[in-house]
Amino acid sequence: MEYFKNVPQIKYEGPKSNNPYAFKFYNPDEIIDGKPLKEHLRFSVAYWHTFTANGTDPFGAPTMQRPWDHFTDPMDIAKARVEAAFELFEKLDVPFFCFHDRDIAPEGETLRETNKNLDTIVAMIKDYLKTSKTKVLWGTANLFSNPRFVHGAATSCNADVFAYAAAQVKKALEITKELGGQNYVFWGGREGYETLLNTDMELELDNLARFLHMAVEYAQEIGFEGQFLIEPKPKEPTKHQYDFDAASVHAFLKKYDLDKYFKLNIEANHATLAGHDFQHELRYARINNMLGSIDANMGDMLLGWDTDQYPTDIRMTTLAMYEVIKMGGFNKGGLNFDAKVRRASFEPEDLFLGHIAGMDAFAKGFKVAYKLVKDGVFDRFIEERYKSYREGIGAEIVSGKANFKTLEEYALNNPKIENKSGKQELLESILNQYLFSE
Amino acid sequence: MEYFKNVPQIKYEGPKSNNPYAFKFYNPDEIIDGKPLKEHLRFSVAYWHTFTANGTDPFGAPTMQRPWDHFTDPMDIAKARVEAAFELFEKLDVPFFCFHDRDIAPEGETLRETNKNLDTIVAMIKDYLKTSKTKVLWGTANLFSNPRFVHGAATSCNADVFAYAAAQVKKALEITKELGGQNYVFWGGREGYETLLNTDMELELDNLARFLHMAVEYAQEIGFEGQFLIEPKPKEPTKHQYDFDAASVHAFLKKYDLDKYFKLNIEANHATLAGHDFQHELRYARINNMLGSIDANMGDMLLGWDTDQYPTDIRMTTLAMYEVIKMGGFNKGGLNFDAKVRRASFEPEDLFLGHIAGMDAFAKGFKVAYKLVKDGVFDRFIEERYKSYREGIGAEIVSGKANFKTLEEYALNNPKIENKSGKQELLESILNQYLFSE
Amino acid sequence: MEYFKNVPQIKYEGPKSNNPYAFKFYNPDEIIDGKPLKEHLRFSVAYWHTFTANGTDPFGAPTMQRPWDHFTDPMDIAKARVEAAFELFEKLDVPFFCFHDRDIAPEGETLRETNKNLDTIVAMIKDYLKTSKTKVLWGTANLFSNPRFVHGAATSCNADVFAYAAAQVKKALEITKELGGQNYVFWGGREGYETLLNTDMELELDNLARFLHMAVEYAQEIGFEGQFLIEPKPKEPTKHQYDFDAASVHAFLKKYDLDKYFKLNIEANHATLAGHDFQHELRYARINNMLGSIDANMGDMLLGWDTDQYPTDIRMTTLAMYEVIKMGGFNKGGLNFDAKVRRASFEPEDLFLGHIAGMDAFAKGFKVAYKLVKDGVFDRFIEERYKSYREGIGAEIVSGKANFKTLEEYALNNPKIENKSGKQELLESILNQYLFSE
Amino acid sequence: MEYFKNVPQIKYEGPKSNNPYAFKFYNPDEIIDGKPLKEHLRFSVAYWHTFTANGTDPFGAPTMQRPWDHFTDPMDIAKARVEAAFELFEKLDVPFFCFHDRDIAPEGETLRETNKNLDTIVAMIKDYLKTSKTKVLWGTANLFSNPRFVHGAATSCNADVFAYAAAQVKKALEITKELGGQNYVFWGGREGYETLLNTDMELELDNLARFLHMAVEYAQEIGFEGQFLIEPKPKEPTKHQYDFDAASVHAFLKKYDLDKYFKLNIEANHATLAGHDFQHELRYARINNMLGSIDANMGDMLLGWDTDQYPTDIRMTTLAMYEVIKMGGFNKGGLNFDAKVRRASFEPEDLFLGHIAGMDAFAKGFKVAYKLVKDGVFDRFIEERYKSYREGIGAEIVSGKANFKTLEEYALNNPKIENKSGKQELLESILNQYLFSE
Repeated sequence: MEYFKNVPQIKYEGPKSNNPYAFKFYNPDEIIDGKPLKEHLRFSVAYWHTFTANGTDPFGAPTMQRPWDHFTDPMDIAKARVEAAFELFEKLDVPFFCFHDRDIAPEGETLRETNKNLDTIVAMIKDYLKTSKTKVLWGTANLFSNPRFVHGAATSCNADVFAYAAAQVKKALEITKELGGQNYVFWGGREGYETLLNTDMELELDNLARFLHMAVEYAQEIGFEGQFLIEPKPKEPTKHQYDFDAASVHAFLKKYDLDKYFKLNIEANHATLAGHDFQHELRYARINNMLGSIDANMGDMLLGWDTDQYPTDIRMTTLAMYEVIKMGGFNKGGLNFDAKVRRASFEPEDLFLGHIAGMDAFAKGFKVAYKLVKDGVFDRFIEERYKSYREGIGAEIVSGKANFKTLEEYALNNPKIENKSGKQELLESILNQYLFSE
Repeated sequence: MEYFKNVPQIKYEGPKSNNPYAFKFYNPDEIIDGKPLKEHLRFSVAYWHTFTANGTDPFGAPTMQRPWDHFTDPMDIAKARVEAAFELFEKLDVPFFCFHDRDIAPEGETLRETNKNLDTIVAMIKDYLKTSKTKVLWGTANLFSNPRFVHGAATSCNADVFAYAAAQVKKALEITKELGGQNYVFWGGREGYETLLNTDMELELDNLARFLHMAVEYAQEIGFEGQFLIEPKPKEPTKHQYDFDAASVHAFLKKYDLDKYFKLNIEANHATLAGHDFQHELRYARINNMLGSIDANMGDMLLGWDTDQYPTDIRMTTLAMYEVIKMGGFNKGGLNFDAKVRRASFEPEDLFLGHIAGMDAFAKGFKVAYKLVKDGVFDRFIEERYKSYREGIGAEIVSGKANFKTLEEYALNNPKIENKSGKQELLESILNQYLFSE
Repeated sequence: MEYFKNVPQIKYEGPKSNNPYAFKFYNPDEIIDGKPLKEHLRFSVAYWHTFTANGTDPFGAPTMQRPWDHFTDPMDIAKARVEAAFELFEKLDVPFFCFHDRDIAPEGETLRETNKNLDTIVAMIKDYLKTSKTKVLWGTANLFSNPRFVHGAATSCNADVFAYAAAQVKKALEITKELGGQNYVFWGGREGYETLLNTDMELELDNLARFLHMAVEYAQEIGFEGQFLIEPKPKEPTKHQYDFDAASVHAFLKKYDLDKYFKLNIEANHATLAGHDFQHELRYARINNMLGSIDANMGDMLLGWDTDQYPTDIRMTTLAMYEVIKMGGFNKGGLNFDAKVRRASFEPEDLFLGHIAGMDAFAKGFKVAYKLVKDGVFDRFIEERYKSYREGIGAEIVSGKANFKTLEEYALNNPKIENKSGKQELLESILNQYLFSE
Repeated sequence: MEYFKNVPQIKYEGPKSNNPYAFKFYNPDEIIDGKPLKEHLRFSVAYWHTFTANGTDPFGAPTMQRPWDHFTDPMDIAKARVEAAFELFEKLDVPFFCFHDRDIAPEGETLRETNKNLDTIVAMIKDYLKTSKTKVLWGTANLFSNPRFVHGAATSCNADVFAYAAAQVKKALEITKELGGQNYVFWGGREGYETLLNTDMELELDNLARFLHMAVEYAQEIGFEGQFLIEPKPKEPTKHQYDFDAASVHAFLKKYDLDKYFKLNIEANHATLAGHDFQHELRYARINNMLGSIDANMGDMLLGWDTDQYPTDIRMTTLAMYEVIKMGGFNKGGLNFDAKVRRASFEPEDLFLGHIAGMDAFAKGFKVAYKLVKDGVFDRFIEERYKSYREGIGAEIVSGKANFKTLEEYALNNPKIENKSGKQELLESILNQYLFSE
């Protein structure tokens, strides 16, 4: 059956098109730098927001109208969602999707039954993958929704919960491998605390590291070659989440000798909740060789929770893609739309309109960023700005020849220091020219 | 003498221009809807940020390099600034400027001497105005910098300070009239409190109202016909400022029967510090017939203080101009760049680059907004969305015929309510088409 | 049956008690200023958080364990909750409770059936009220949870929804009267917008005013003599809520001639989400004669959503009660615990521990505030601080005799203005003495 | 001469005292756990806020009235401040002070002259130290106020600035050693960026590490045995500061092999600006063995800038001291009042009142925390809460015996997981009992 009958195959029609079911800026097959745009962008659909989110919020009941709403048996719903998913993937011509274990199959009475449900759906998905152009970008385990995780998973105060989480991630690694997933993500939804009055932070962090080491070992044992990723988020649902931002994850990985196994999955909305620009988190990850993949969405800068909106701010997507291009493009990662339609966008078609909005925004952003990089706009400015470190005293500083005594000697005999304007306004103007004049 | 020798006359060269001293999107003489763009936008230079700001911040000393730095006598500096100002106005071809009394002339030992200084400079400016194309958009009094205002001006706990402030505003009204100012602005920089432990909020608000009534009376007495404006800001420098946002000023004006005399001067950065989008504050002011003028700048959404950056976010300028166009354009108000170059943009040329960045951003925004309005893009969507209020039970609600009993009767017999998607993602996509495809 | 078997009758045992099921600071019968503490504080239990909240959050399923969990029929659950409620009221010796229509009875298939459910439960509650010491502080209607309210209730774009909301409030007014409710609250959970791109703000606000006028008329018609209250909240669930804060509600009520019918229900967590201290909102309401009642809770100042925590910050409760005492105490209002146990506090007993925490915090706060007022600590400081308005030029300002000309004359001849320190640090020290030395 | 004639020697008079110039909770000589309270608390005065701050803010001129205001020569002022400082230290009986190089002596025309000024004042201070009971807690260099640091110091784009900063720190290390400073602090006021458009973040961070390595080497060379500290702050004055919070400094130190040389100086107001509770930052530092010293102040949680208020929130000071006691007390660190009187508290006496407020708040907090630790209140709760990790499967997890396969086996055969309530409300109640019943 066709689930989204009103929605045609989405194609590129250019920015003047009045057809809501068309790409305006994203032409998947446009060749840039020797390969099609879709291979640069590696778009991915998030199974959870697209196929399981129902529009609840802390003050309201589900609103979403979905073509599988007439089913009542959880496994029937799960199967219908798989069918609908591959229809949506095909209509959007999207090369990847991502999933949590609990998105694709319902929990049973016991872990054994849950795993059985999972096996059934995984087999079904595997079958689809044989003929679909869409692949698995990454898999993960949902270690936060079930009430058993109320105090955390790997950081729970209850060892039984740690064990359960381990069993769940073991299975999730197996199915991610089975489905050819190119990465595996850890998002520690409940790995944090609500109040320090009842929390042994040190033990919790040690346990989290133990958990991740076990995951590394098990992946090696089963030959899973995907990239491990950690996704930072500062708060929500917990008051404080241990994976606060890129830097705090960096510290954690260094402390526990995990840094060679993990990269980061950076999400726009999580960056801003941590008080950072999206580009900042990407830059931090990039220069530390930790930028693995991206969760493409955006938040509302005036709201203090994760709105996970479809990304439509093209200035933001441009600066994000700038970092990706500067690192040489994605390797195993991609742009996963960890985005949900607003609660008021409850019609099935909105799922397509949201993705089109996001794909167009990132395509336009990529193209502007590519031109900025190719033209060396900011590179040349920065090269000039820091040139003092490539000669004289600056070169000595960088090469390690200088010390406080030689530098003091230099400074005492260098009476007049001249700085130059940072020219932020000019650079923002030039960015606007690139954004608005193509 | 020429103060900005390196800066040529700024002209429109189009978005592909590599000339930093050219407008890319702002063609002042482009005719839109029967009049030149410059008459739609009514750009204004803020005297304070442009001619008196020195680049200090809470952790650092002045950085700005200005062509009048070699003067030492305060009056010599003041005169040089006037000369430089009119050179800048002309080179930018900007139709307006705004000023505080203390921007243009230094304080003397006594109020009498201060007023004398002011008279000297006002005469000089008046002379310039005879031949300049640039006029005064608005004047105001600085009632916050001098230590006497440490506890407020009209809301000071010290009646001597209230009296001083009254004398100062009296003079400021006189010189604004003298210079042909089209508006007079009240920004209550210290009208607020630091802690309620020492504050009589009720008396302070009553006194603020008394002060404004006196201003209205005096303006009538001297025949000043400019529009009175209040500029909301939620905090900074004080912990809480009484003119928190458009709504709180609205309440204040209503309570004290001042609403017929005052409109609002809405500033982007103040809107976001209050937790509102810039467009929200403009909309609120517009539908309450209170939108007088705009302070055009932008803040950094991740910083909690007034950065007063030059506005370069064209999505934001578009939505702002959308509100202005929907109210029928500016009457006496305009777009005043209450914006300062960043502390690191300390070269004199940056003053021009900042204004060019802002003028281009608003010009582009205006043109996109104009097309959105002309094409009825959002209007048609909204008309359709609210159509239920133009017929049947909705029409009865709006006309006042319905009451709780008739509505209950209707609801009891209307078993199925159908809502339609709000289509936010689609609308954001369409906005992007308008922004990025012209 | 007894629902909370582990929980004894809660009594006052003093601050050194080790019994978790005892009041430490709240002695209900302690006589202060001629009446028992419980009559000053007028504590109220919120039916929703206490009896219907289940511990879901945006990332997790229900966690709460409740003694009525074994029931499956919604009406059986509703009845069990009533029974449990009056047991809890009695054990806590709490004089009031508050409810939404949908808290107490489940929705049926139709509005008629829903109303029938409501009638059944209302009759049951009425029966309990005959013998209980606990009364209804206020009732309200839930116009935000059901998906029909996705675009708002009185501000919905759909007139059918407006009608439904009207029918619902009509019924809610009737049952609040039936149950002897002393107030009726409007909390506009969805009265706001998600994006201005699809919103007719002017029509929505006009409709909200029409709705409230109808409510006033209907209340008069049925002889409901309770106080109408509006509860401000700035955001969440919607991006922007029209009842942003006390001042914006004030403006709205003034604009639409509703101010004589409505007072405010101020909530601590909503105050801070709006960028205000709790005391600020109370002070604003008090000096405008709009302080009706209080929703007693607190937020986490580092989180951007409504955590509705039990209030345990005694500095905050002290300053809140200070405002209540200064207005002469509550009239019809009270302290309603609009507070929920944290998701991890899922045991039934936590409902009692939460209330004890909150009641103790407000009792201690009241006692400190009472002493502060009685000793005139801040009053005397403020009287001295503003004394210049009781004589000379200040008296002329306040009496309306002064104008800009007389004030200028005064200022020109008043060469030296002397201000005095605001002494914030000293006042905070004194507050600490009162807080920590009784 | 006596600078603060109105201020007597400050002594402990107990919480009921009406004398503003008395300690209410801080009895310096009270013996707790075998040593006097003052040795536990190690209070320190911040030279900058106390002796050089003038009350300017971004919108206002200096307000502070100081007994050295009649001097005009910068060196005369510097000398008067030293005299006044030791008078204040003695009257407050404070054991330490902290300083920046530029606080104590003015800059000259050249670095040589500046160093000469410094030598003069250092000699004077050294003389005072011979007889004073007050010692130097830490020294530091001001690398942010002078316009040369507009683009940073060690992270400047200008190598000449790096060299200058090196020379300045070299000298600051020498004088800190000379004056017996027990620590040396790095606060990177301008080590960050304003916009990524012009920033080479990677080079800047590498250079910062080079700078710190040079400092370590030079300290070893001259035999400075004080502890090196880094003080995190997320933003202000720059948009993004590299030392964002404890975790990001941790990552930085690990990455560049600096972690064995540096600990942290945690400031309350910087913690909250980074989105963390003060206690969180202290806990993070403590469990990573990085807690060196504390900057004792507090921010206003509703304001987005560093208000550096005197700490008067005793709940906060209690939880802070809890962490200090749990780490075994301060070693070389202490409680430095990095706090300034509010701009409106401009009288000289307010400097004393502010310190008294802060010292009382920390003394009371220490005493409550000490009792909490001694009674094992939270420790016992936490021990019970995490007990599952001390036996069975939990012990295997902690000891490293478990792996994903053994844990899956366990989980598959452990059908029912039982969690217990986290009891946050109860724990907050108990904390209130300890706070308010002593």
